[in-house]
Amino acid sequence: MARGPPAAAAAAAAAARVPRLAGVGRALLLLTAAATFLPAAESSCPRDNSLVRDISRMPQSNYGREGFSHITVAGALAHGMKEVEVWLQTFGPGKRTPIHRHSCEEVFVVLKGKGTLLLGSSSLKHPGEPQKIPVFQNSTFTIPVNDPHQVWNSDEYEDLQVLVIISRPPIKIFIYDDWSVPHTAAKLKFPYYWDEDCLPAPKDEL
Amino acid sequence: MARGPPAAAAAAAAAARVPRLAGVGRALLLLTAAATFLPAAESSCPRDNSLVRDISRMPQSNYGREGFSHITVAGALAHGMKEVEVWLQTFGPGKRTPIHRHSCEEVFVVLKGKGTLLLGSSSLKHPGEPQKIPVFQNSTFTIPVNDPHQVWNSDEYEDLQVLVIISRPPIKIFIYDDWSVPHTAAKLKFPYYWDEDCLPAPKDEL
Repeated sequence: MARGPPAAAAAAAAAARVPRLAGVGRALLLLTAAATFLPAAESSCPRDNSLVRDISRMPQSNYGREGFSHITVAGALAHGMKEVEVWLQTFGPGKRTPIHRHSCEEVFVVLKGKGTLLLGSSSLKHPGEPQKIPVFQNSTFTIPVNDPHQVWNSDEYEDLQVLVIISRPPIKIFIYDDWSVPHTAAKLKFPYYWDEDCLPAPKDEL
Repeated sequence: MARGPPAAAAAAAAAARVPRLAGVGRALLLLTAAATFLPAAESSCPRDNSLVRDISRMPQSNYGREGFSHITVAGALAHGMKEVEVWLQTFGPGKRTPIHRHSCEEVFVVLKGKGTLLLGSSSLKHPGEPQKIPVFQNSTFTIPVNDPHQVWNSDEYEDLQVLVIISRPPIKIFIYDDWSVPHTAAKLKFPYYWDEDCLPAPKDEL
Protein backbone atom coordinates (compact mmCIF):
# COMPACT_ATOMS: atom_id res chain seq x y z
CA MET A 1 0.00 0.00 0.00
CA ALA A 2 1.29 3.48 -0.82
CA ARG A 3 1.73 5.61 2.26
CA GLY A 4 2.37 9.37 2.31
CA PRO A 5 3.08 11.52 5.34
CA PRO A 6 1.39 9.97 8.40
CA ALA A 7 -1.74 12.14 8.72
CA ALA A 8 -2.47 12.25 5.00
CA ALA A 9 -1.73 8.56 4.69
CA ALA A 10 -4.05 7.71 7.54
CA ALA A 11 -6.86 9.71 6.01
CA ALA A 12 -6.23 8.27 2.55
CA ALA A 13 -5.99 4.77 3.92
CA ALA A 14 -9.19 5.27 5.87
CA ALA A 15 -10.95 6.57 2.80
CA ALA A 16 -9.68 3.62 0.81
CA ARG A 17 -10.61 1.21 3.55
CA VAL A 18 -14.11 2.02 4.55
CA PRO A 19 -15.83 1.58 1.20
CA ARG A 20 -14.38 -1.89 1.04
CA LEU A 21 -17.14 -3.02 3.35
CA ALA A 22 -19.12 -2.93 0.15
CA GLY A 23 -16.99 -5.53 -1.53
CA VAL A 24 -17.11 -7.67 1.55
CA GLY A 25 -20.86 -7.76 1.70
CA ARG A 26 -20.78 -9.09 -1.80
CA ALA A 27 -18.14 -11.66 -0.94
CA LEU A 28 -20.19 -12.90 1.99
CA LEU A 29 -23.24 -12.98 -0.20
CA LEU A 30 -21.58 -14.99 -2.93
CA LEU A 31 -20.05 -17.40 -0.48
CA THR A 32 -23.29 -17.93 1.37
CA ALA A 33 -25.17 -18.41 -1.87
CA ALA A 34 -23.93 -22.00 -2.02
CA ALA A 35 -25.52 -22.72 1.35
CA THR A 36 -28.81 -21.29 0.13
CA PHE A 37 -29.60 -24.51 -1.59
CA LEU A 38 -29.28 -26.70 1.47
CA PRO A 39 -32.55 -28.14 2.63
CA ALA A 40 -33.75 -26.14 5.63
CA ALA A 41 -34.33 -29.19 7.77
CA GLU A 42 -30.64 -30.14 8.05
CA SER A 43 -29.40 -26.85 9.36
CA SER A 44 -31.69 -26.10 12.24
CA CYS A 45 -29.21 -26.04 15.13
CA PRO A 46 -25.60 -25.70 14.09
CA ARG A 47 -23.94 -26.51 17.44
CA ASP A 48 -20.23 -25.95 16.96
CA ASN A 49 -17.56 -25.15 19.50
CA SER A 50 -14.72 -24.51 17.06
CA LEU A 51 -12.74 -21.41 17.91
CA VAL A 52 -12.77 -20.18 14.29
CA ARG A 53 -15.71 -20.86 11.99
CA ASP A 54 -16.01 -20.30 8.25
CA ILE A 55 -19.25 -18.32 7.86
CA SER A 56 -19.63 -19.44 4.26
CA ARG A 57 -19.86 -23.03 5.52
CA MET A 58 -22.20 -22.38 8.42
CA PRO A 59 -25.71 -23.76 8.17
CA GLN A 60 -28.35 -21.28 7.09
CA SER A 61 -32.09 -21.52 6.77
CA ASN A 62 -35.05 -19.38 5.76
CA TYR A 63 -37.10 -20.65 8.72
CA GLY A 64 -40.15 -20.87 6.53
CA ARG A 65 -39.87 -17.30 5.20
CA GLU A 66 -39.47 -17.17 1.45
CA GLY A 67 -36.70 -14.86 0.23
CA PHE A 68 -34.99 -14.81 3.62
CA SER A 69 -31.77 -16.31 4.92
CA HIS A 70 -30.49 -16.44 8.51
CA ILE A 71 -27.14 -17.64 9.83
CA THR A 72 -26.36 -17.59 13.54
CA VAL A 73 -22.75 -16.44 13.31
CA ALA A 74 -22.20 -16.56 17.09
CA GLY A 75 -25.12 -17.73 19.19
CA ALA A 76 -26.10 -18.58 22.74
CA LEU A 77 -27.51 -22.01 22.08
CA ALA A 78 -25.27 -23.07 19.21
CA HIS A 79 -21.97 -21.58 20.39
CA GLY A 80 -22.30 -20.90 24.09
CA MET A 81 -22.49 -17.09 23.95
CA LYS A 82 -23.90 -15.55 27.12
CA GLU A 83 -23.94 -11.80 26.51
CA VAL A 84 -24.05 -11.10 22.77
CA GLU A 85 -25.25 -12.86 19.65
CA VAL A 86 -24.39 -12.15 15.99
CA TRP A 87 -26.50 -13.02 12.95
CA LEU A 88 -26.03 -12.68 9.20
CA GLN A 89 -29.36 -12.12 7.46
CA THR A 90 -30.33 -11.58 3.83
CA PHE A 91 -33.70 -10.25 2.68
CA GLY A 92 -34.75 -10.62 -0.95
CA PRO A 93 -36.40 -7.63 -2.68
CA GLY A 94 -39.63 -6.67 -0.89
CA LYS A 95 -39.07 -9.01 2.07
CA ARG A 96 -39.39 -7.83 5.66
CA THR A 97 -39.18 -8.94 9.28
CA PRO A 98 -42.40 -9.19 11.28
CA ILE A 99 -43.38 -6.06 13.20
CA HIS A 100 -41.85 -6.83 16.59
CA ARG A 101 -40.20 -5.52 19.74
CA HIS A 102 -37.67 -6.77 22.26
CA SER A 103 -36.03 -5.40 25.39
CA CYS A 104 -32.49 -6.23 24.31
CA GLU A 105 -30.19 -3.90 22.43
CA GLU A 106 -29.88 -4.46 18.69
CA VAL A 107 -27.35 -3.05 16.22
CA PHE A 108 -27.52 -3.50 12.44
CA VAL A 109 -24.62 -3.10 10.02
CA VAL A 110 -25.79 -2.99 6.41
CA LEU A 111 -23.32 -4.99 4.31
CA LYS A 112 -25.22 -4.78 1.04
CA GLY A 113 -28.33 -3.27 -0.49
CA LYS A 114 -30.74 -0.75 0.93
CA GLY A 115 -34.06 -0.73 2.68
CA THR A 116 -36.35 0.96 5.14
CA LEU A 117 -36.48 0.81 8.91
CA LEU A 118 -40.07 1.20 10.10
CA LEU A 119 -40.16 2.38 13.68
CA GLY A 120 -43.29 2.66 15.82
CA SER A 121 -43.80 4.19 19.22
CA SER A 122 -43.48 2.50 22.58
CA SER A 123 -45.04 5.39 24.46
CA LEU A 124 -48.54 5.17 22.96
CA LYS A 125 -50.84 2.21 23.61
CA HIS A 126 -49.96 0.75 20.22
CA PRO A 127 -47.09 1.33 17.76
CA GLY A 128 -49.10 3.71 15.53
CA GLU A 129 -48.03 4.98 12.12
CA PRO A 130 -44.32 4.13 11.93
CA GLN A 131 -41.51 6.48 10.97
CA LYS A 132 -39.91 5.34 7.72
CA ILE A 133 -36.15 5.68 7.82
CA PRO A 134 -33.91 4.84 4.86
CA VAL A 135 -30.95 2.54 5.51
CA PHE A 136 -28.23 1.77 2.99
CA GLN A 137 -25.01 -0.10 2.36
CA ASN A 138 -22.31 0.88 4.88
CA SER A 139 -24.84 2.32 7.30
CA THR A 140 -25.42 1.25 10.88
CA PHE A 141 -28.51 1.67 13.01
CA THR A 142 -29.61 0.80 16.52
CA ILE A 143 -33.14 -0.11 17.57
CA PRO A 144 -34.27 1.79 20.68
CA VAL A 145 -35.02 -0.79 23.38
CA ASN A 146 -38.66 -1.96 23.31
CA ASP A 147 -39.61 0.14 20.26
CA PRO A 148 -41.74 -1.85 17.80
CA HIS A 149 -39.98 -2.04 14.44
CA GLN A 150 -39.71 -3.76 11.12
CA VAL A 151 -36.79 -4.01 8.72
CA TRP A 152 -37.94 -3.99 5.10
CA ASN A 153 -35.96 -4.53 1.93
CA SER A 154 -37.87 -1.83 0.09
CA ASP A 155 -35.71 -2.20 -3.01
CA GLU A 156 -37.21 -3.88 -6.03
CA TYR A 157 -34.11 -5.60 -7.33
CA GLU A 158 -31.29 -6.04 -4.88
CA ASP A 159 -30.88 -8.18 -1.78
CA LEU A 160 -30.46 -6.46 1.58
CA GLN A 161 -27.76 -8.10 3.69
CA VAL A 162 -27.20 -7.17 7.33
CA LEU A 163 -25.12 -8.22 10.28
CA VAL A 164 -27.26 -8.09 13.39
CA ILE A 165 -25.95 -7.89 16.93
CA ILE A 166 -28.21 -8.42 19.94
CA SER A 167 -27.55 -8.43 23.67
CA ARG A 168 -28.82 -10.91 26.29
CA PRO A 169 -29.47 -13.88 24.01
CA PRO A 170 -31.47 -15.92 23.28
CA ILE A 171 -33.85 -13.28 21.96
CA LYS A 172 -37.37 -12.85 23.34
CA ILE A 173 -39.53 -11.37 20.59
CA PHE A 174 -43.05 -9.90 20.82
CA ILE A 175 -44.81 -9.92 17.45
CA TYR A 176 -47.52 -7.50 16.23
CA ASP A 177 -49.91 -8.44 13.42
CA ASP A 178 -50.07 -4.77 12.42
CA TRP A 179 -49.18 -1.30 13.72
CA SER A 180 -52.52 -0.87 15.51
CA VAL A 181 -52.16 -3.89 17.81
CA PRO A 182 -51.85 -2.73 21.46
CA HIS A 183 -48.43 -3.44 22.99
CA THR A 184 -50.12 -5.62 25.58
CA ALA A 185 -51.58 -7.82 22.83
CA ALA A 186 -48.30 -8.46 20.97
CA LYS A 187 -47.51 -12.17 21.05
CA LEU A 188 -44.36 -13.54 22.63
CA LYS A 189 -42.55 -15.95 20.33
CA PHE A 190 -39.99 -17.74 22.47
CA PRO A 191 -37.82 -19.51 21.67
CA TYR A 192 -37.54 -17.67 18.35
CA TYR A 193 -37.48 -19.71 15.15
CA TRP A 194 -33.71 -20.11 14.89
CA ASP A 195 -33.41 -21.00 18.55
CA GLU A 196 -36.28 -23.44 18.61
CA ASP A 197 -34.39 -26.47 17.42
CA CYS A 198 -31.41 -25.69 19.64
CA LEU A 199 -33.20 -26.09 22.94
CA PRO A 200 -32.63 -29.38 24.72
CA ALA A 201 -35.41 -31.85 23.96
CA PRO A 202 -37.93 -32.05 26.81
CA LYS A 203 -37.24 -34.97 29.09
CA ASP A 204 -39.49 -37.96 28.73
CA GLU A 205 -41.32 -38.02 32.04
CA LEU A 206 -42.96 -41.39 31.63
CA MET B 1 -2.84 -1.04 -3.79
CA ALA B 2 -3.25 -3.60 -6.58
CA ARG B 3 -6.75 -4.86 -7.00
CA GLY B 4 -8.00 -7.67 -9.23
CA PRO B 5 -10.97 -7.12 -11.50
CA PRO B 6 -13.68 -8.32 -9.05
CA ALA B 7 -12.53 -6.03 -6.26
CA ALA B 8 -12.19 -3.14 -8.67
CA ALA B 9 -15.64 -3.81 -10.02
CA ALA B 10 -17.05 -3.99 -6.52
CA ALA B 11 -15.37 -0.73 -5.59
CA ALA B 12 -16.64 0.89 -8.76
CA ALA B 13 -20.12 -0.41 -8.12
CA ALA B 14 -19.99 0.88 -4.56
CA ALA B 15 -18.76 4.25 -5.76
CA ALA B 16 -21.49 4.37 -8.37
CA ARG B 17 -24.09 3.51 -5.79
CA VAL B 18 -23.41 6.33 -3.39
CA PRO B 19 -24.85 9.13 -5.53
CA ARG B 20 -28.10 7.21 -5.78
CA LEU B 21 -28.64 7.93 -2.11
CA ALA B 22 -29.45 11.46 -3.19
CA GLY B 23 -33.17 10.77 -3.38
CA VAL B 24 -33.83 9.19 -0.03
CA GLY B 25 -30.67 9.53 1.98
CA ARG B 26 -29.64 13.05 1.15
CA ALA B 27 -30.89 14.60 4.37
CA LEU B 28 -28.99 12.07 6.47
CA LEU B 29 -25.95 12.41 4.32
CA LEU B 30 -25.92 16.17 4.64
CA LEU B 31 -26.52 15.99 8.36
CA THR B 32 -23.55 13.74 8.91
CA ALA B 33 -21.38 15.56 6.40
CA ALA B 34 -20.57 18.34 8.83
CA ALA B 35 -18.79 15.94 11.16
CA THR B 36 -16.86 14.33 8.31
CA PHE B 37 -14.63 17.27 7.62
CA LEU B 38 -13.52 17.85 11.17
CA PRO B 39 -9.82 17.18 11.73
CA ALA B 40 -9.15 13.80 13.35
CA ALA B 41 -8.13 15.39 16.63
CA GLU B 42 -11.55 16.93 17.09
CA SER B 43 -13.42 13.78 16.23
CA SER B 44 -11.91 11.41 18.75
CA CYS B 45 -15.25 11.11 20.50
CA PRO B 46 -17.84 11.06 17.76
CA ARG B 47 -20.91 11.60 19.92
CA ASP B 48 -23.85 11.14 17.61
CA ASN B 49 -27.40 10.19 18.43
CA SER B 50 -28.62 9.82 14.84
CA LEU B 51 -30.70 6.70 14.37
CA VAL B 52 -28.87 5.78 11.14
CA ARG B 53 -25.19 6.56 10.64
CA ASP B 54 -23.09 6.30 7.48
CA ILE B 55 -20.04 4.27 8.55
CA SER B 56 -17.94 5.62 5.71
CA ARG B 57 -18.41 9.12 7.17
CA MET B 58 -17.82 8.22 10.80
CA PRO B 59 -14.66 9.56 12.42
CA GLN B 60 -11.77 7.12 12.56
CA SER B 61 -8.36 7.29 14.17
CA ASN B 62 -5.26 5.15 14.58
CA TYR B 63 -4.94 6.19 18.25
CA GLY B 64 -1.19 6.48 17.84
CA ARG B 65 -0.73 3.04 16.29
CA GLU B 66 0.74 3.23 12.80
CA GLY B 67 -1.05 1.11 10.20
CA PHE B 68 -4.19 0.80 12.33
CA SER B 69 -7.67 2.26 12.00
CA HIS B 70 -10.54 2.14 14.51
CA ILE B 71 -14.13 3.31 14.11
CA THR B 72 -16.61 2.97 16.96
CA VAL B 73 -19.64 1.92 14.90
CA ALA B 74 -21.95 1.74 17.91
CA GLY B 75 -20.48 2.67 21.26
CA ALA B 76 -21.35 3.23 24.89
CA LEU B 77 -19.87 6.67 25.29
CA ALA B 78 -20.47 8.01 21.79
CA HIS B 79 -23.89 6.49 21.07
CA GLY B 80 -25.39 5.50 24.40
CA MET B 81 -25.08 1.72 24.06
CA LYS B 82 -25.37 -0.09 27.38
CA GLU B 83 -24.93 -3.77 26.59
CA VAL B 84 -23.00 -4.18 23.34
CA GLU B 85 -20.48 -2.21 21.34
CA VAL B 86 -19.41 -2.61 17.70
CA TRP B 87 -16.09 -1.54 16.15
CA LEU B 88 -14.68 -1.58 12.64
CA GLN B 89 -10.92 -2.07 12.72
CA THR B 90 -8.30 -2.34 9.99
CA PHE B 91 -4.76 -3.63 10.53
CA GLY B 92 -2.09 -3.00 7.90
CA PRO B 93 0.25 -5.87 7.00
CA GLY B 94 2.22 -7.06 10.04
CA LYS B 95 0.24 -4.94 12.53
CA ARG B 96 -1.20 -6.42 15.72
CA THR B 97 -3.18 -5.60 18.84
CA PRO B 98 -1.34 -5.57 22.16
CA ILE B 99 -1.35 -8.86 24.08
CA HIS B 100 -4.35 -8.35 26.33
CA ARG B 101 -7.30 -9.86 28.17
CA HIS B 102 -10.77 -8.75 29.22
CA SER B 103 -13.70 -10.31 31.03
CA CYS B 104 -16.29 -9.32 28.43
CA GLU B 105 -17.33 -11.46 25.50
CA GLU B 106 -15.79 -10.60 22.13
CA VAL B 107 -16.75 -11.76 18.65
CA PHE B 108 -14.77 -11.02 15.48
CA VAL B 109 -16.14 -11.17 11.94
CA VAL B 110 -13.36 -11.01 9.35
CA LEU B 111 -14.54 -8.80 6.49
CA LYS B 112 -11.30 -8.76 4.54
CA GLY B 113 -7.80 -10.23 4.59
CA LYS B 114 -6.33 -12.91 6.81
CA GLY B 115 -4.28 -13.15 9.95
CA THR B 116 -3.44 -15.07 13.07
CA LEU B 117 -5.16 -15.23 16.43
CA LEU B 118 -2.60 -15.79 19.20
CA LEU B 119 -4.24 -17.24 22.25
CA GLY B 120 -2.53 -17.76 25.61
CA SER B 121 -3.71 -19.56 28.72
CA SER B 122 -5.67 -18.12 31.61
CA SER B 123 -5.16 -21.20 33.79
CA LEU B 124 -1.37 -20.92 34.20
CA LYS B 125 0.28 -18.06 36.12
CA HIS B 126 1.11 -16.32 32.86
CA PRO B 127 -0.18 -16.65 29.28
CA GLY B 128 2.70 -18.89 28.12
CA GLU B 129 3.44 -19.88 24.54
CA PRO B 130 0.27 -18.92 22.62
CA GLN B 131 -1.66 -21.13 20.24
CA LYS B 132 -1.50 -19.73 16.71
CA ILE B 133 -4.81 -19.99 14.94
CA PRO B 134 -5.33 -18.86 11.34
CA VAL B 135 -8.29 -16.57 10.63
CA PHE B 136 -9.46 -15.52 7.18
CA GLN B 137 -12.04 -13.51 5.23
CA ASN B 138 -15.57 -14.64 6.04
CA SER B 139 -14.50 -16.34 9.24
CA THR B 140 -15.75 -15.58 12.73
CA PHE B 141 -14.08 -16.23 16.05
CA THR B 142 -14.85 -15.66 19.70
CA ILE B 143 -12.31 -14.91 22.42
CA PRO B 144 -12.79 -17.07 25.52
CA VAL B 145 -13.51 -14.73 28.42
CA ASN B 146 -10.30 -13.63 30.25
CA ASP B 147 -7.95 -15.50 27.89
CA PRO B 148 -4.93 -13.38 26.94
CA HIS B 149 -4.85 -12.90 23.19
CA GLN B 150 -3.50 -10.92 20.29
CA VAL B 151 -4.89 -10.41 16.80
CA TRP B 152 -2.12 -10.17 14.21
CA ASN B 153 -2.31 -9.33 10.54
CA SER B 154 0.30 -11.93 9.64
CA ASP B 155 -0.11 -11.28 5.93
CA GLU B 156 2.66 -9.39 4.16
CA TYR B 157 0.53 -7.51 1.65
CA GLU B 158 -3.12 -7.20 2.46
CA ASP B 159 -5.03 -5.28 5.13
CA LEU B 160 -6.99 -7.25 7.69
CA GLN B 161 -10.43 -5.72 8.34
CA VAL B 162 -12.65 -6.95 11.15
CA LEU B 163 -15.93 -6.09 12.78
CA VAL B 164 -15.56 -6.52 16.52
CA ILE B 165 -18.43 -6.96 18.95
CA ILE B 166 -17.94 -6.72 22.71
CA SER B 167 -20.33 -6.98 25.63
CA ARG B 168 -20.55 -4.75 28.72
CA PRO B 169 -18.93 -1.62 27.30
CA PRO B 170 -16.87 0.43 27.81
CA ILE B 171 -14.08 -2.16 27.62
CA LYS B 172 -11.67 -2.76 30.50
CA ILE B 173 -8.42 -4.07 29.04
CA PHE B 174 -5.43 -5.63 30.84
CA ILE B 175 -2.25 -5.38 28.77
CA TYR B 176 0.76 -7.76 28.84
CA ASP B 177 4.19 -6.66 27.64
CA ASP B 178 4.90 -10.23 26.56
CA TRP B 179 3.55 -13.75 26.98
CA SER B 180 5.61 -14.41 30.12
CA VAL B 181 4.13 -11.57 32.20
CA PRO B 182 2.10 -13.01 35.13
CA HIS B 183 -1.65 -12.35 34.86
CA THR B 184 -1.47 -10.43 38.11
CA ALA B 185 1.09 -8.04 36.59
CA ALA B 186 -0.88 -7.19 33.43
CA LYS B 187 -1.68 -3.48 33.40
CA LEU B 188 -5.24 -2.16 33.34
CA LYS B 189 -5.76 0.46 30.64
CA PHE B 190 -9.06 2.12 31.38
CA PRO B 191 -10.60 4.00 29.78
CA TYR B 192 -9.22 2.42 26.61
CA TYR B 193 -7.74 4.70 23.94
CA TRP B 194 -10.91 5.22 21.92
CA ASP B 195 -12.97 5.80 25.04
CA GLU B 196 -10.56 8.19 26.67
CA ASP B 197 -11.73 11.33 24.95
CA CYS B 198 -15.37 10.41 25.43
CA LEU B 199 -15.40 10.47 29.20
CA PRO B 200 -16.82 13.57 30.84
CA ALA B 201 -14.07 15.99 31.84
CA PRO B 202 -13.24 15.73 35.55
CA LYS B 203 -15.01 18.36 37.60
CA ASP B 204 -12.98 21.26 38.79
CA GLU B 205 -13.01 20.84 42.53
CA LEU B 206 -11.43 24.15 43.43
